[in-house]
Amino acid sequence: MAKMIDLNCDMGESYGAWRMGDDTELLDLVSSANIACGFHAGDPSTIDATVAAAAKRNVAIGAHPSYPDLAGFGRRSMEISTRDIETAVLYQIAALAGIAKANGAALHHVKPHGALYNDAAKDAPLAQAIARAVARFDPHLVLVGLPNSALIAAGNAEGLTTVGEGFCDRAYEPDGSLQSRSKPGAVFDDPARAAEQALALARSDRVRTICIHGDTPNAAAIARAVRTALRDAGYAFAPPEAS
Amino acid sequence: MAKMIDLNCDMGESYGAWRMGDDTELLDLVSSANIACGFHAGDPSTIDATVAAAAKRNVAIGAHPSYPDLAGFGRRSMEISTRDIETAVLYQIAALAGIAKANGAALHHVKPHGALYNDAAKDAPLAQAIARAVARFDPHLVLVGLPNSALIAAGNAEGLTTVGEGFCDRAYEPDGSLQSRSKPGAVFDDPARAAEQALALARSDRVRTICIHGDTPNAAAIARAVRTALRDAGYAFAPPEAS
Amino acid sequence: MAKMIDLNCDMGESYGAWRMGDDTELLDLVSSANIACGFHAGDPSTIDATVAAAAKRNVAIGAHPSYPDLAGFGRRSMEISTRDIETAVLYQIAALAGIAKANGAALHHVKPHGALYNDAAKDAPLAQAIARAVARFDPHLVLVGLPNSALIAAGNAEGLTTVGEGFCDRAYEPDGSLQSRSKPGAVFDDPARAAEQALALARSDRVRTICIHGDTPNAAAIARAVRTALRDAGYAFAPPEAS
Amino acid sequence: MAKMIDLNCDMGESYGAWRMGDDTELLDLVSSANIACGFHAGDPSTIDATVAAAAKRNVAIGAHPSYPDLAGFGRRSMEISTRDIETAVLYQIAALAGIAKANGAALHHVKPHGALYNDAAKDAPLAQAIARAVARFDPHLVLVGLPNSALIAAGNAEGLTTVGEGFCDRAYEPDGSLQSRSKPGAVFDDPARAAEQALALARSDRVRTICIHGDTPNAAAIARAVRTALRDAGYAFAPPEAS
Repeated sequence: MAKMIDLNCDMGESYGAWRMGDDTELLDLVSSANIACGFHAGDPSTIDATVAAAAKRNVAIGAHPSYPDLAGFGRRSMEISTRDIETAVLYQIAALAGIAKANGAALHHVKPHGALYNDAAKDAPLAQAIARAVARFDPHLVLVGLPNSALIAAGNAEGLTTVGEGFCDRAYEPDGSLQSRSKPGAVFDDPARAAEQALALARSDRVRTICIHGDTPNAAAIARAVRTALRDAGYAFAPPEAS
Repeated sequence: MAKMIDLNCDMGESYGAWRMGDDTELLDLVSSANIACGFHAGDPSTIDATVAAAAKRNVAIGAHPSYPDLAGFGRRSMEISTRDIETAVLYQIAALAGIAKANGAALHHVKPHGALYNDAAKDAPLAQAIARAVARFDPHLVLVGLPNSALIAAGNAEGLTTVGEGFCDRAYEPDGSLQSRSKPGAVFDDPARAAEQALALARSDRVRTICIHGDTPNAAAIARAVRTALRDAGYAFAPPEAS
Repeated sequence: MAKMIDLNCDMGESYGAWRMGDDTELLDLVSSANIACGFHAGDPSTIDATVAAAAKRNVAIGAHPSYPDLAGFGRRSMEISTRDIETAVLYQIAALAGIAKANGAALHHVKPHGALYNDAAKDAPLAQAIARAVARFDPHLVLVGLPNSALIAAGNAEGLTTVGEGFCDRAYEPDGSLQSRSKPGAVFDDPARAAEQALALARSDRVRTICIHGDTPNAAAIARAVRTALRDAGYAFAPPEAS
Repeated sequence: MAKMIDLNCDMGESYGAWRMGDDTELLDLVSSANIACGFHAGDPSTIDATVAAAAKRNVAIGAHPSYPDLAGFGRRSMEISTRDIETAVLYQIAALAGIAKANGAALHHVKPHGALYNDAAKDAPLAQAIARAVARFDPHLVLVGLPNSALIAAGNAEGLTTVGEGFCDRAYEPDGSLQSRSKPGAVFDDPARAAEQALALARSDRVRTICIHGDTPNAAAIARAVRTALRDAGYAFAPPEAS
């Protein structure tokens, strides 16, 4: 029986007249889509079109909530109260889930974006605020985070199904955190190297989903290389099961 | 048997450090709350708190979607494509409904805000875009609009339950549209006059819900006067029934 | 003696993580740059870098103020009071001029963007609000608009130097207004056709500056073709003189 | 000869339909106004009106730049690159200075707002980015900050005139930083206590300007008490001299 792995990609990150990523090409290569919710990217028409395209391909639909920071694309940490983070995440999940509903689909998972993701890996109160927002909205949603992170712990404490994520196209620090994008070499653009790291991640059993960043120039080439390497190693592709 | 009338009020229109309206006082006086969705007012914590306060009092919870215009408080017309209006309204309804769900409540109605409300009274394609968004999200929601407006017609065409609204604290133009706020005397602040107009509206049978604006200085006094006048005339207070 | 013509291009229209246009390539081909001021595009770092790049090449620096509408890229009309338009334009001109000053350069002209440009061609009170903002900030600035437009009339009434603009890459309606971008064929992408129209515009004596849109895929090819055609016809390139 | 002291107040912090502070009453009581620049508060019409009102009373006009955070009123720290902070501050100073120019006045000083002010007291690279923005725009501007802070050091290193500020209506931590607003008792509302602290601050010789917060309910009463106490102690009121 095939071992299961999920390939996920951040999507819907255009905004108005500005384009980002080639979502339709990537949607044919992944099993899960994390869709921007409007706070770092994603105007309503982009979200609606991305959700519809994912639903059409049976790609699992996830919310990709962020700090409220369009100008910074959600990549800048903000010291926001846990109350305001909880409601900001709740608002974004709700918007995404409702647009999924309007497209005849259902929200499957939540994966925080950018600085919120990274901060929630280490900051327990922040992680708890996010997990609380998810649980308040729907305790059957899957919460995606860095393995062994504060976010995964908070999700478990709330009774959520949690899933560890690996990154095939990003360098890691020795402590398991992601290397900052500002460091040279932090983002891989070589499909072979990404495929190799994807395979190592899948075999480590620490991750159940592997992220491919859609905003790298050759994201589709990376996705194809990763997909082929995993398939050749006996993996099948499917989103993690919700509870 | 008592004749039924609904008293509604726009709420949740604070934003961050800025306060507007005395929502908790008014929530004890109305049967329906139209809650800002973040596009003209209403940060997520304000929305969540307003929804919780309405749910606690069994006040019917409505979404109050707007043009995307915080700086203009949604009071300025914008020439937005019907596609972008449809998805902007869908996004806002979804956010509000999800926050209601997280508070153990359900969304009951949708009433567009400000310039979107006024424009949708006359502009059929705009009205249809709004009605389509409501129907796509949930065809059982009530759509509130000006009697005989393009919005009511569009809602009916989508199979929605539609409800005509009257304004007790605003002057009308002879064609049944609202007088512009920029005209002197367009907004009433005398509770007795508002109560008189509320009674006339209720008796006209053209409206099933009467709006009290929460951002007038003596909104609570107006609400009490209107409530007393209607009760003394034999009316009971309840939100319109959804289908 | 050479006849003078100005080639202008809208620039600085990236925003945070989103890129738009190849500004540095176009800066070598034009004599004037209209730089986004933050209301439809242009974060402060983008503005500062664009101003510095224009100053380095002695390209005339212009402010490109817009309706406040990032999500719509300033392409949607908004019914804003003349008071709020005047101050919004003043704010944007001031920001651009100050960043020019910080780069050792001076603001040369003002050209409204998108829907504001088109609306100001026909709406006299709107045009007057814009012209008033320019004159209040600096009566020596050049105001760029559609020939024979309300904007040019308002600028003249304020005592500003006004300059008529032609578009080499956009189809015109018979009344001299620009064809809507939503019509097929409204935007030219053939450099030869743009060069031909540029030459006709220059010879008509109705325009002193010709716009090349930077957000078309082959903007640089168009700019080169236009430049060559005009030079071969005996034109030299220079921004209009301020008073 | 009278000892000189400056009373300053943060102003122009309304935004669109939302009001904050009673600026006109306070303008008669202070010698310097720090005017919001649009990033945490202050729409262009509010800024223009506030500048005009300050200019009419010969109150010194200052820019009050902030992190870009309307929803958080600039009170939340953000991890923004020094490049983006420098240009964000430059943009805001430029906008304010240009609106002052349009009102026949000149910008006198710069005082960062909220979290930016507090962060710049301790974070040298952040403080240097702010000081660089001020110096790039106009090296003759006065920079206001916490005494002995990183901001004052950075301003001195850039050759700016720097001025230490005290707060009459806020509790201090033992290290000289402001107590967080979230602590009970952090904000004084007793005019007598504020007047006492103002006098102690003035006599300490560590501050040349004393801030009165305009967003406390009895800001005007505090301002009057502080003014009277200082005058009775022999102080005269004037903004610090620029170089």
